[in-house]
Order: sequence, then C-alpha cells, then structure tokens
Amino acid sequence: MTRVKVFTNILKANDSIAQKNRDIFNKNRVYAINLMSSPGSGKTSLLERTIESLKDELKIAVVEGDLQTDKDAKRIEKYNIPVVQINTKGACHLDSKMVDRVLGFFNFQEINLLVIENVGNLVCPASFDLGEDDRVIMVSIPEGDDKPIKYPVMFRKAKVVLINKVDLLDYTNFNMAGIKKDALSINPHLKIFEISCQAGEGLEDWFDWLKEQVRKKRDED
Amino acid sequence: MTRVKVFTNILKANDSIAQKNRDIFNKNRVYAINLMSSPGSGKTSLLERTIESLKDELKIAVVEGDLQTDKDAKRIEKYNIPVVQINTKGACHLDSKMVDRVLGFFNFQEINLLVIENVGNLVCPASFDLGEDDRVIMVSIPEGDDKPIKYPVMFRKAKVVLINKVDLLDYTNFNMAGIKKDALSINPHLKIFEISCQAGEGLEDWFDWLKEQVRKKRDED
Repeated sequence: MTRVKVFTNILKANDSIAQKNRDIFNKNRVYAINLMSSPGSGKTSLLERTIESLKDELKIAVVEGDLQTDKDAKRIEKYNIPVVQINTKGACHLDSKMVDRVLGFFNFQEINLLVIENVGNLVCPASFDLGEDDRVIMVSIPEGDDKPIKYPVMFRKAKVVLINKVDLLDYTNFNMAGIKKDALSINPHLKIFEISCQAGEGLEDWFDWLKEQVRKKRDED
Repeated sequence: MTRVKVFTNILKANDSIAQKNRDIFNKNRVYAINLMSSPGSGKTSLLERTIESLKDELKIAVVEGDLQTDKDAKRIEKYNIPVVQINTKGACHLDSKMVDRVLGFFNFQEINLLVIENVGNLVCPASFDLGEDDRVIMVSIPEGDDKPIKYPVMFRKAKVVLINKVDLLDYTNFNMAGIKKDALSINPHLKIFEISCQAGEGLEDWFDWLKEQVRKKRDED
C-alpha cells in the first residue's frame, strides 16, 4: 500500500515537470517523440537510418537514455547532430526531470524534431510522461507476437508501433496479422509500420509520417 | 534523494523475505532458479523444452511471473507439472513477497527443481533477490551483442547465461566471441551456453548442467 502511494506521488511530480517540458517543445514548435522498446529491438538502428535519410530535410536532435554506458549516444554522435546522453545510473526508465535537466543543452531554434530514446524496457517507461508529443513503440519479429497482450499499457498510450526486423520473418513463427489485431484491439488509433532497419525495408512510410508530424507541429496555431 | 532511500528500504524488506524463501528451498532440498531476460528472448520456450526433456528425471515446478496475462502459465500447464501464476498487476519485476505468497501452493516433497520465470525485463528484476539458488539470464541473438555492457548488474549476479536463437546467427551481425568476452569480464564465473529452443540446438549441455545442480542440492549436507 505504501509503495503504491509513493509511486502515485512520484508520478504526480513527474507529470508537472513533463508539462513544463511540453511547454518548451510547443513554444519552439519542436515535435518530440518518446521512443520505447525492449532491449535490442533496434531503437538506435532506427535513429541511425532516420538521421541518415532525413538530416538534410529535418533539424533533428536526440536524447539518449541509457543505464550506464554512452554506447548509443556514440553511435548517433557521428552524424553531427545535437545529441545529449542521459545516464540513468541504474534507473529503468527516463523521467521528466531527467529530460528537463538536459533541455538547456539544446538550441531549439535549430531543431524541429527531438527524439528521446528511452531505456530498453517495455514496462516502466510507459508510466512516465516526458512531455513528448507522441510515443513510438518498437517491437521486433524475433521477440514474438505476444507483446501487445503482455504489455498493454505501453500500447494503449502509443501513437505508432514499428514492427522491426521483418527480414527475419521467414525464420520465425511470428503472426503478423495476429499482432496487428491485438495491438489495434488495445488501441484502434495506432499507426503500424513494418520495417527492417538492417535491410532498409519499409522505412519510407515511416519517414513520410515523421515529416508530416514535424510539418504539422511547425504550422500549428 | 528521497527515492533512493525508499528504494533502499524496499530492498531491505525484500532481502529478509527472500531469506525466508531460501530457507524453505534449502529445508526441502529444492534447487531454485530465477530465470530472467528481455521480453521475447525465449524464457517460456526454454521451459517448454526443458520440461519435455527432463520431466521424467526431475520433479519440476514453475512459478510464472507476468504483468497481467496467464499466457505463459497456460503454455506450461499442458505438461501436467505444478505451475503457479503470479500476476504482478503492472509491476515490472517479481519480488520475494510475491513469491512467498505462492509457495504454499506447492508440495515441496514432490519437487526438486523450481524455476521462477521473472517478468521480461533486463533492469529491475536484477535488484530483487527471490531466495533462488542461482540466477539464469537469457539473451537472444537478434537482441544484439551489447547486453552485458549495457546491463552489467544483471550479469554480475548471474550464474548462467543462455544465448538463445543461435539458429538466427547467420542473419545478423552478432559477435559471439565479443559478447562472451564482455560477459566474462563482468563476471568471470559465468557459465555460458549457446542454444536454440526453436531448433533444439545445444540444449543437452544445459540439461546436464541443470541435472547436476539438482543432484548437488539433493546431496548437500
């Protein structure tokens, strides 16, 4: 009982700082996404592909959440875009305060897309609003098709599901129609993309969708 | 600061109940493992293969930790062994109290191996002793070879690492020598098995190791 109350208070504090972050994103017309998945689904690879293709069209910046290494941040740094590493020191998710602390490192005049790559975890990050416009979840073929049923909170609050590693589809018993049906039964508004970051498949639709969101945010009243 | 203290108190309470669970396992000479991995690495498939092969030699029972479904428990139930489902109601890990609450459902006279399948998560479960004899971590090829470096706590406290889905090795750029080197640099005592639950590869060594542990526990003074 005590733990539940502690958690409720933590979430309330988190929400108020998330709103502060959101105000900053809105004021600067920066479209912000919170990118979440299991460890090893391919979040950083998605970022690499996305930056490679869109860095001349969009002004992209990245926040990298990680338990203790800067491996992922180093993978992004080579593209010469603004990237800030948050080391959670063992915490299993980002919270809005961690993000708040690093926003000062960015020049938001020079950014229109901010991607916050969360810690690899399908559970805890779902509870913590970071102030993002939208949540993007990635699942990958080898993880199996039962993720929406087993982690419904994550899917309920998301805007997009990226199903990665479709190049491995033939080597598994993954049920693509099944996972889509399950995900949409939890959240009928989900946009679902089938992609392979390694093989470069299906990414154009994701790029187009992303550009559309950035444009909408820029032009909104 | 406050959060850290709360967490420390929670862990202290957890450790004392874990010791109570451990006493029960020891008194009954039951070898207990805490099986952990990311979502979708193949923990339940490993259990299926292990039960199929060893159920006549060992007296196996299973505790299934899950956020909210009983999908995994149902997969185990069909083998007619004792299985109890713990529904964590959203909590991202098992704790010793959750396990304590279900131990009464088992007849330990009829069990010599208890496998506790934790919630799919490479972070939080690492902090919570359940009273197990040993921790077994599973990682799988498509998740990538960077898991030891990114989740060192998990590896530091483990006895065994199972590298699953080796049948997918040819379709990825997974560095097998690299992950082993990284894992052993964190924990030189790790026992590492390369397996494929789907293709049935490499499982004999795991079975032999498991039987040896059960035998040791039975024969210990």
